[in-house]
Amino acid sequence: MTLAFDSTDSIRSAQPLRHAQSVTFDKPLKLSHGSELPGVTVAYETWGTLNPAKDNAVLVCHAISGDSHCARHDEQDDPGWWDELIGPGKSIDTDRYFVVCSNVLGGCRGTTGPISTDPRTGKPFGGSFPLVTVTDMVSAQVRLADHLGIERWAACVGGSLGGHQAMTWATRYPGRVARCFAIATSPRLSSQALAFDVVGRNAILRDPDFHGGQYYDKPTGPTVGLALARMLGHITYLSPEAMSTKFDLDRNQPHEIATDFEKRFSVGSYLAHQGDKFVERFDANSYVTISLAMDLFDLGATPRELRTLLGKSACDWLIVSFSSDWLFTPKQSCEMAHALLREGRSVTYVEIPSDSGHDAFLLRNEIGRYGRLLRAKLDGPSRNPSENVADHNAHSLFNSSGIEYEQIMQFIPKGSGVLDLGCGTCGLLAKLRERDGQDVRLMGVDVNEEKILLAVEAGFDVIDHDLNTPLSMFEDGAFDVVVLSQTLQAVNDVQALLDEMVRVGQRAVVSFPNFAHRSLREMFFHQGRIPKSPGAYGFDWHNSPNRRFPTILDFEDFCRDKGYRIETAVALDLQNGTRVTEEPNLHADTAIYVLRRASGPSR
Amino acid sequence: MTLAFDSTDSIRSAQPLRHAQSVTFDKPLKLSHGSELPGVTVAYETWGTLNPAKDNAVLVCHAISGDSHCARHDEQDDPGWWDELIGPGKSIDTDRYFVVCSNVLGGCRGTTGPISTDPRTGKPFGGSFPLVTVTDMVSAQVRLADHLGIERWAACVGGSLGGHQAMTWATRYPGRVARCFAIATSPRLSSQALAFDVVGRNAILRDPDFHGGQYYDKPTGPTVGLALARMLGHITYLSPEAMSTKFDLDRNQPHEIATDFEKRFSVGSYLAHQGDKFVERFDANSYVTISLAMDLFDLGATPRELRTLLGKSACDWLIVSFSSDWLFTPKQSCEMAHALLREGRSVTYVEIPSDSGHDAFLLRNEIGRYGRLLRAKLDGPSRNPSENVADHNAHSLFNSSGIEYEQIMQFIPKGSGVLDLGCGTCGLLAKLRERDGQDVRLMGVDVNEEKILLAVEAGFDVIDHDLNTPLSMFEDGAFDVVVLSQTLQAVNDVQALLDEMVRVGQRAVVSFPNFAHRSLREMFFHQGRIPKSPGAYGFDWHNSPNRRFPTILDFEDFCRDKGYRIETAVALDLQNGTRVTEEPNLHADTAIYVLRRASGPSR
Repeated sequence: MTLAFDSTDSIRSAQPLRHAQSVTFDKPLKLSHGSELPGVTVAYETWGTLNPAKDNAVLVCHAISGDSHCARHDEQDDPGWWDELIGPGKSIDTDRYFVVCSNVLGGCRGTTGPISTDPRTGKPFGGSFPLVTVTDMVSAQVRLADHLGIERWAACVGGSLGGHQAMTWATRYPGRVARCFAIATSPRLSSQALAFDVVGRNAILRDPDFHGGQYYDKPTGPTVGLALARMLGHITYLSPEAMSTKFDLDRNQPHEIATDFEKRFSVGSYLAHQGDKFVERFDANSYVTISLAMDLFDLGATPRELRTLLGKSACDWLIVSFSSDWLFTPKQSCEMAHALLREGRSVTYVEIPSDSGHDAFLLRNEIGRYGRLLRAKLDGPSRNPSENVADHNAHSLFNSSGIEYEQIMQFIPKGSGVLDLGCGTCGLLAKLRERDGQDVRLMGVDVNEEKILLAVEAGFDVIDHDLNTPLSMFEDGAFDVVVLSQTLQAVNDVQALLDEMVRVGQRAVVSFPNFAHRSLREMFFHQGRIPKSPGAYGFDWHNSPNRRFPTILDFEDFCRDKGYRIETAVALDLQNGTRVTEEPNLHADTAIYVLRRASGPSR
Repeated sequence: MTLAFDSTDSIRSAQPLRHAQSVTFDKPLKLSHGSELPGVTVAYETWGTLNPAKDNAVLVCHAISGDSHCARHDEQDDPGWWDELIGPGKSIDTDRYFVVCSNVLGGCRGTTGPISTDPRTGKPFGGSFPLVTVTDMVSAQVRLADHLGIERWAACVGGSLGGHQAMTWATRYPGRVARCFAIATSPRLSSQALAFDVVGRNAILRDPDFHGGQYYDKPTGPTVGLALARMLGHITYLSPEAMSTKFDLDRNQPHEIATDFEKRFSVGSYLAHQGDKFVERFDANSYVTISLAMDLFDLGATPRELRTLLGKSACDWLIVSFSSDWLFTPKQSCEMAHALLREGRSVTYVEIPSDSGHDAFLLRNEIGRYGRLLRAKLDGPSRNPSENVADHNAHSLFNSSGIEYEQIMQFIPKGSGVLDLGCGTCGLLAKLRERDGQDVRLMGVDVNEEKILLAVEAGFDVIDHDLNTPLSMFEDGAFDVVVLSQTLQAVNDVQALLDEMVRVGQRAVVSFPNFAHRSLREMFFHQGRIPKSPGAYGFDWHNSPNRRFPTILDFEDFCRDKGYRIETAVALDLQNGTRVTEEPNLHADTAIYVLRRASGPSR
């Protein structure tokens, strides 16, 4: 296969984009590292209409090699880099929102950057362009927002470096951001990601055609160095799985391309093509400038520093990561979500399962999945919470029902902040919201992507988290009540989880099927068979997701042993819809306990 | 901190190593890609003494930037790159073995390479050095082996590219290799690893000082390109975890070094140092030559091709991977082990848990762990197999004992090939070997590193494998008997595992604790408590590793449902050491079943 393109030299002047407007601010822009720019031009594009209340504006921030063209403006237009996400009727609906996307400071697509003319010399800045940070990029965007009359963004949205910008808005201008959507990003680059950037920059800086950045008047620019940096970038954007799928089988059949780079291997021709193509549209000085800004972005080296900085925000957060993204890892997104939660912020965090690596945030397939999350957070609840009651208890031995929720709710004082572990689609939280109104803090934790999505669409914040790992994202006593409803039997280390529940909640409410119910005992005693589930799910001994078989007696012993104070205990016969007072361990099919730390603070 | 070194130019001539000898073969060496070298010099070092039988020779093969100095020759000597592994009394004991390590063909430490003089021109080969492959590297080593009078290596050992060489010996010269130890290596590079090499080579090839490889008479060589390639290599040798540990905290405090590379960030100064240091000791043409040989190494794109090639080997295999190695992944080592097993070869495979990445194979800490495996495979059994009986059944509900092994052995005809799943330290296999002798095929599968080590030291081959994933490394009917002793209750998907057992074995022998034993039934019925384990391990309902509770009746139903033919069933009262014939589901504490596929071939 031949990939047709002309390899030309690196770009020599900022090429304006067709739909870009620009505005120039003559007032010098003070930069965070001390120097200043004599003035600044910002190139930007807009979609949709700013409403009279001016509260429907969404700022979209681009990544290292992006530009202001995030979506097409009409049918004939070139697609934008986030075309699947933004447009009429799409997740960020331009019929509803006024979308703004500007080229970053230091870029080469219309906004002031190294290729721009320094008014003080009449020549391009080149290597004398000052060091800029993400904060400076946002300072330029602030001027644009003021210019457009936007006091407060409905949302700041960005992936990768775009996420860094969105987070900078949220933390430095908390009054001007209602929502922050940080996609495939990080509080600061991992040392590995930083290392790749260092090598890429060194390839440019040590290219003999770089000339300290003063190459615009030279016959050639540092095209080899820039292409090498881009090749390296491409490896880090793809997951190993994606590379394997793309290149393993035809490894020794490179595409026939015209290039001066090595032509062996299919992956070699791909990288050569990406490198050659990039130098046609991007400026090496901009690449150095922007990659350095990304490397200097730093919300803190420690969880405490991260909390301090993210705690300055006052918006609603959505954080999305992709499972195979090794450049901006799910672990880093988790750290951000955890810091925000520890600071009491409203956060939904989801890790999308994907084989596409960091690139996932730009790919059609993946946008279909996380776009729904963005839309739900942006537009507000789109589902009737009462639809949520249904599929809560996939692991229940007995058919659970509204009765159980009603019982649990009796132990949750009105107005309590509640965390529901294994929340499913947030059926219990929906009932609590019906009862207590919108102003209480209700959150869910689950691992099922589809259920999380439904819960978010019903207006709840959910954290994508495995209950077999600690709840370290929540402060001691962060909630009045932490609920674990019909999930205990699927947990690996029961004590570890209950310790966390009574740490995070003033009270823990635990409901579970009582495996010592007479029907199960009799079956086991007389028939010598492990009881089959009488519930709807029909798991057998050999394939049940249940791995723990709590009984009322065992559970109470356990609580005594481990130092949980049992504040209330209720035994239920859910099948008959009654409470059980006589011999509960024999007659109850379900038990609900309210626990506290034995030595815990009283309310 | 200051790292003291002088950055000089790239090396201009092959620098002989202090202890290296060399031998020159005048006969032209035909290369796999068609061309030939007019003759070849091989530089090498040796340790220890070749015994009269000439069967104690070990070939050590080096990785991309290594050389013949793998160990020190005396106290005053510089340490070698595998100093922890090789020496008097060490894992590869030079008091016992005659160790040979040669510089690879194409290298720059004495063996013929680009820097060598082409006798036809009287000038260095430079860019005219022919394309060489790992096969060619081994061809040069074959000449050396002949020269030293070594007909058959006791072992060929290597990590990374060294592993490629060892595997090439094993597959192309099966009669000359008794053992192959392939460490941190792969059947071919992943597309991701290949991509990094491509970028590294492009940095060299497009360095204006490369001059198509004819730079030896120029004032400077392609030092920038070579340093960039080395920096990139270093990132891939470290795991993300290791980089984080090394560089996260002092991120903004670079070491003070003299370098022309970027000086920001601690990781930047580290990479600059590594890059600058490398060009002092390595030749860019050699780097290009060797990295290309590594990239061209290919045991096959498909499992079938891999089997065909590895199936040519006739030696005993040890394959070791490291959990955090993302350049030569555990998955790739698994693929090699699986292909060999499918071809009926004798293999031990172990994945060593490590945070050190690919570098692990060279690091002191890790060598301590896998060195024992090498020694065990090289020296033969060092433990009395009868010591193995003890800690087999960590998951047993009842105390297991020799009695159970004796019972199981009754169902294993003499001389049967046996695979023991969850083998622990191979207590059962040791008893079988005592009974049946050395010539039967006995293998174990486990996940516990320490137990695997003990099993290997007792002379058994073990595959490091999680029983919750398919046994795809074994052919249908590969063993006469597959045993699962006291492990069923800890398995996630019982059917999936039993399906595999009756596929891989002519017969499957399954023993498990009968949870319907009267003591457990009574306890549950009368007390309403989930029975505590009467065994030594004392797990409770809330923390037991058991997640399945098989009873004799349930298991028999299950076998009927799923189409396993029960050939024999024995119920035991292990606590009293008797067989149970009356009401086994009530009185037996242990059951042993011999199963076959319902439609399976009869023997």
